[in-house]
Amino acid sequence: MEPINVYDYEALAEQRLAPGAWAFYSSGAGDEVTLRRNRAAFERIQLLPRILTGYGAADTATTVLGTPVGLPILVAPTAAHGMACAEAECATARGAGEASTLMVAATESTRSIEEIAAAATGPLWSQLYVYRGHRPLAESLVRRAEATGCRALVLTVDAPLWGSKDRSARVPADWPPAANLGELDDSELGPEPLTWADLDWLRSLTAMPLVVKGVLLPDDALRALDHGAAAIVVSNHGGRQLDGVPASIEALPAIIETVAGRCQVYLDGGVRRGTDVLKALALGARAVLVGRPALWGLAVDGAAGVRHVLELLRNELEEAMVLAGVGSIAEIDGSLVRWS
Amino acid sequence: MEPINVYDYEALAEQRLAPGAWAFYSSGAGDEVTLRRNRAAFERIQLLPRILTGYGAADTATTVLGTPVGLPILVAPTAAHGMACAEAECATARGAGEASTLMVAATESTRSIEEIAAAATGPLWSQLYVYRGHRPLAESLVRRAEATGCRALVLTVDAPLWGSKDRSARVPADWPPAANLGELDDSELGPEPLTWADLDWLRSLTAMPLVVKGVLLPDDALRALDHGAAAIVVSNHGGRQLDGVPASIEALPAIIETVAGRCQVYLDGGVRRGTDVLKALALGARAVLVGRPALWGLAVDGAAGVRHVLELLRNELEEAMVLAGVGSIAEIDGSLVRWS
Amino acid sequence: MEPINVYDYEALAEQRLAPGAWAFYSSGAGDEVTLRRNRAAFERIQLLPRILTGYGAADTATTVLGTPVGLPILVAPTAAHGMACAEAECATARGAGEASTLMVAATESTRSIEEIAAAATGPLWSQLYVYRGHRPLAESLVRRAEATGCRALVLTVDAPLWGSKDRSARVPADWPPAANLGELDDSELGPEPLTWADLDWLRSLTAMPLVVKGVLLPDDALRALDHGAAAIVVSNHGGRQLDGVPASIEALPAIIETVAGRCQVYLDGGVRRGTDVLKALALGARAVLVGRPALWGLAVDGAAGVRHVLELLRNELEEAMVLAGVGSIAEIDGSLVRWS
Amino acid sequence: MEPINVYDYEALAEQRLAPGAWAFYSSGAGDEVTLRRNRAAFERIQLLPRILTGYGAADTATTVLGTPVGLPILVAPTAAHGMACAEAECATARGAGEASTLMVAATESTRSIEEIAAAATGPLWSQLYVYRGHRPLAESLVRRAEATGCRALVLTVDAPLWGSKDRSARVPADWPPAANLGELDDSELGPEPLTWADLDWLRSLTAMPLVVKGVLLPDDALRALDHGAAAIVVSNHGGRQLDGVPASIEALPAIIETVAGRCQVYLDGGVRRGTDVLKALALGARAVLVGRPALWGLAVDGAAGVRHVLELLRNELEEAMVLAGVGSIAEIDGSLVRWS
Repeated sequence: MEPINVYDYEALAEQRLAPGAWAFYSSGAGDEVTLRRNRAAFERIQLLPRILTGYGAADTATTVLGTPVGLPILVAPTAAHGMACAEAECATARGAGEASTLMVAATESTRSIEEIAAAATGPLWSQLYVYRGHRPLAESLVRRAEATGCRALVLTVDAPLWGSKDRSARVPADWPPAANLGELDDSELGPEPLTWADLDWLRSLTAMPLVVKGVLLPDDALRALDHGAAAIVVSNHGGRQLDGVPASIEALPAIIETVAGRCQVYLDGGVRRGTDVLKALALGARAVLVGRPALWGLAVDGAAGVRHVLELLRNELEEAMVLAGVGSIAEIDGSLVRWS
Repeated sequence: MEPINVYDYEALAEQRLAPGAWAFYSSGAGDEVTLRRNRAAFERIQLLPRILTGYGAADTATTVLGTPVGLPILVAPTAAHGMACAEAECATARGAGEASTLMVAATESTRSIEEIAAAATGPLWSQLYVYRGHRPLAESLVRRAEATGCRALVLTVDAPLWGSKDRSARVPADWPPAANLGELDDSELGPEPLTWADLDWLRSLTAMPLVVKGVLLPDDALRALDHGAAAIVVSNHGGRQLDGVPASIEALPAIIETVAGRCQVYLDGGVRRGTDVLKALALGARAVLVGRPALWGLAVDGAAGVRHVLELLRNELEEAMVLAGVGSIAEIDGSLVRWS
Repeated sequence: MEPINVYDYEALAEQRLAPGAWAFYSSGAGDEVTLRRNRAAFERIQLLPRILTGYGAADTATTVLGTPVGLPILVAPTAAHGMACAEAECATARGAGEASTLMVAATESTRSIEEIAAAATGPLWSQLYVYRGHRPLAESLVRRAEATGCRALVLTVDAPLWGSKDRSARVPADWPPAANLGELDDSELGPEPLTWADLDWLRSLTAMPLVVKGVLLPDDALRALDHGAAAIVVSNHGGRQLDGVPASIEALPAIIETVAGRCQVYLDGGVRRGTDVLKALALGARAVLVGRPALWGLAVDGAAGVRHVLELLRNELEEAMVLAGVGSIAEIDGSLVRWS
Repeated sequence: MEPINVYDYEALAEQRLAPGAWAFYSSGAGDEVTLRRNRAAFERIQLLPRILTGYGAADTATTVLGTPVGLPILVAPTAAHGMACAEAECATARGAGEASTLMVAATESTRSIEEIAAAATGPLWSQLYVYRGHRPLAESLVRRAEATGCRALVLTVDAPLWGSKDRSARVPADWPPAANLGELDDSELGPEPLTWADLDWLRSLTAMPLVVKGVLLPDDALRALDHGAAAIVVSNHGGRQLDGVPASIEALPAIIETVAGRCQVYLDGGVRRGTDVLKALALGARAVLVGRPALWGLAVDGAAGVRHVLELLRNELEEAMVLAGVGSIAEIDGSLVRWS
């Protein structure tokens, strides 16, 4: 089967990945209610196309925190790409760059940020976990992100512990060492539960813009702004942390209304179609991030797979924009959608 | 199996058609959310029958843009009938006429408009696509529609590009040449993204009434009126263009309210039962169009199949009218329905 | 399998009945949306039990138009019981009487009203169809109902024609002659579409109270009152006439509110559990009627089956009343239910 | 399969239990609408986590009527544990105590309250049924509860009769004698339908706090308070009495609002995940009770199974609290949830 959409890549990836890797990547927390809700919520949004606007093509280019990207679809930070491809995150970064977008490199990458940066053909952001009892490591990771030219620091705030995923727990995964952590065994590391004060500390540590990932409530979004966040990611961690939380796309509108343009707002969780991207942007997101889709591409065809997945989404987005009657990202607004 | 409803024809057509033709006709865009929504929305409408009105039969005759038809069910423009029947649109036109209704002949017909008109036993309207870089062809198609006696020009406005249909993309179809296009290879032609100014241009080109097909929003309906449309078709192109748009029957009420009787409003998308027709008319449509049902009839039994499908729908409509307590199309109004 | 609820009887009846009889009895009109809705609507009603009321048993006795019955569950008029049991309606009437309730004998009974009355062990009402071109027959049927001691005349008003049932149409049924019609072949008879004036005519014809069956709208209920109806049956004919109409239990509350106690209101359609009866009574019905459940009982075990089905429902109703904290029919009111 | 959640225990228990015991424990009343609703309602509640609160662990300890427990999850009274384990309730009590919570011992226990108390490693409450014609037995049961140190009396008020469970009725269960009832054959005993006056009588009989179990309506909750209840359990008896009543979690908010803190309110019905416990507490419950989950644990591994089931739930609750940003039971409030 020649894959023609993200679901095809998912099906192929299930065949190619070791069972433990498949279970780890695909599973959600608890009863996977939020995992399913992420998709179901997109289906409840209706698109309202305008006719006779004269567009036969659309420009999907935009910027995120000032960095130009060819499409408003970034690669989300996900762990352990070595389970999907021998070249691991180096391939992912190459695929993302070739698709003219940026990748958020995860702390728990199989390859080090230095290796990823060397392989990358596009811009990088660096995701950060702070490990309990290892603050110096966090500082070092920030410095290495700066040194390798990462343009933003993405702090994941919805993981004061690693959420349980029953489906994954039943199938052991052959988890590769995380190169960024050096001699430390990441299976023995636990996350540091962070506070708002820690955000200030990080803010003081670096000039890189700070992106706070894992926000679902308007008050927390405001508070992130007050503590110097340059952007936030509305996210439920792909349904992998607390089961039962809202779909991220459900949580988006109230946050957009509350931040009222004072920072950029991104979204991840359940994006599988170009029309999903159009819906998220119409509801106010600056861009979306895709985690599992990039992993499916990586598992199926390495860098080329990542690139193809992103191109499929970009092409679907462009088609959706044309059919909705808009010619550029700037023309996308709330009039294009309603909840059914 | 003797087919006794439209679903029977659908099942038989799936057996008779080549896989590529079946996939082309039956598929919808994206995840086929809108394709399913077109049906599901009809099921959410409740009929409210009046008792003891004394009708044992009902007259289903009406007029569309002044042309009398025996039933408020027209044949929608669909491409490439040659994949369903050797006689192609000539058979469809004969079947439609024998069922005492009119057919909208598609630009991308297998047979030319002249051949169709020669075979037709009822009135025709002519659907128009404008191809990029081929304005003279569009003018010529308009002239030929006039010359063959077509009574209206139906401009499709929801196709600035051909929407992707994944299910169809996986199965190659043996697409026959489109006779109307002469030597041009229609697989190389792309649609011209049209503007409101193009509507004026078309309006100026011909005295045929102009029907704008593919409207989903009240503002666009109003604007079509302002640009001289004689009628509009509330349509999502059978769920084949932008996935995620509203069901056409969901989009109808706001448009009816907005145009407030200043033009006729038709509807297509998901009509499979006489009760669907009754619901659409109760919500304000002057008539409905059926695309796939006519194709299923054509694939199963040529002109006789088209005729039988239309007669089944007409009979079901008459039965529904009698059971709802109305004796004529004019008696159908909004009091007969409510949304559940 | 020893049947312990109505569904068991349904499953057994499917095994015992000829395919055509099963299809005829079980099918609904169109896509069977209303058939399913009748059941689904009951599930949307929540029961709100009162605690510590001290009842360990409940009295299910009530009266309908002054006739005492041991349970508020009557046998609805259904045609052609001869397909289910050699003794046909004579067995049904005996079973109903032994369960201490009344039966509504259908015009299209396999046995004549005289035979049914002779066999009956409980009170009878007589259902009436008026056939086109056969007004004298209608008058005669009314006279025979009076002569056989029927206590009410039930006029079916939702059948100006026999609704199509596709599932039934595919399987020929061995339809027995309708004894009430004498030499007339009922397959050649069509119903007379009735008017409100015909109600007056019937009203003038007999002193029996007139029950109007097939009302779904409050205005029609009021008008039935104005024309002398002693009671109405909120009914959609078991989902067998116009597909898409509301569930009868959905239609009940507005009618109850409108008639405001000026006549008794019954309900049929989808009653399969004692809790359904409790819900209908809490929403204002005086009693319910069951059609198919009685037929399943008849098909499985003749009069004893009819009796057992009714006893199962009565026992379930009593249990539901006790658990809801009410000891008699008179204590059932709207505080026991809410819509979810 | 190593069980890692309550559903695993359920699946294993189905394999280990005799068919009649499985059917008895797992079934619900009627069509099991309420049984399913108990679960579905939890899925409609969304959790709204707070970020960056700094908790990496949470304290699940609380008190119920002054008794400290390590988790807000009690063992509900359920009958006949001898069908699940030879040690019966003695094992259950040991498992509950080892998990640092309390058990409500049922009147219809296989083992006597004296045996259970002797085996127990944690606090006990005693559930009471009053049998018709056996008031002295009820008094004696109260005295024995006092004598064995039970800290509260739990009066079940939703069982004026034993509700029918069709699934269970089809499979005979090998029901063990209920030791508390001495020579009496409990298959011949029926419940005494109680009144509010009986509550006063019980209240006057003992100094143990009285917990009224089986309340679904705010008015009844208030009245229980007026009659001296120290606490109430919002419960529908696990969907086993009157089918069609609300999910207990649906019924909770109005009751919490009405009692306004004047007594403790517990909840049972459908709790299968730590997130369910968090939702119930956020909606105002002081604690939840689990019935079937404890039985599955008992059937699979005796006391150790009961303990493990409770520990799994406690661990899930702690994880949910951390991910929701709360560090103790006292911090849980209504801001953590909303209905979707």
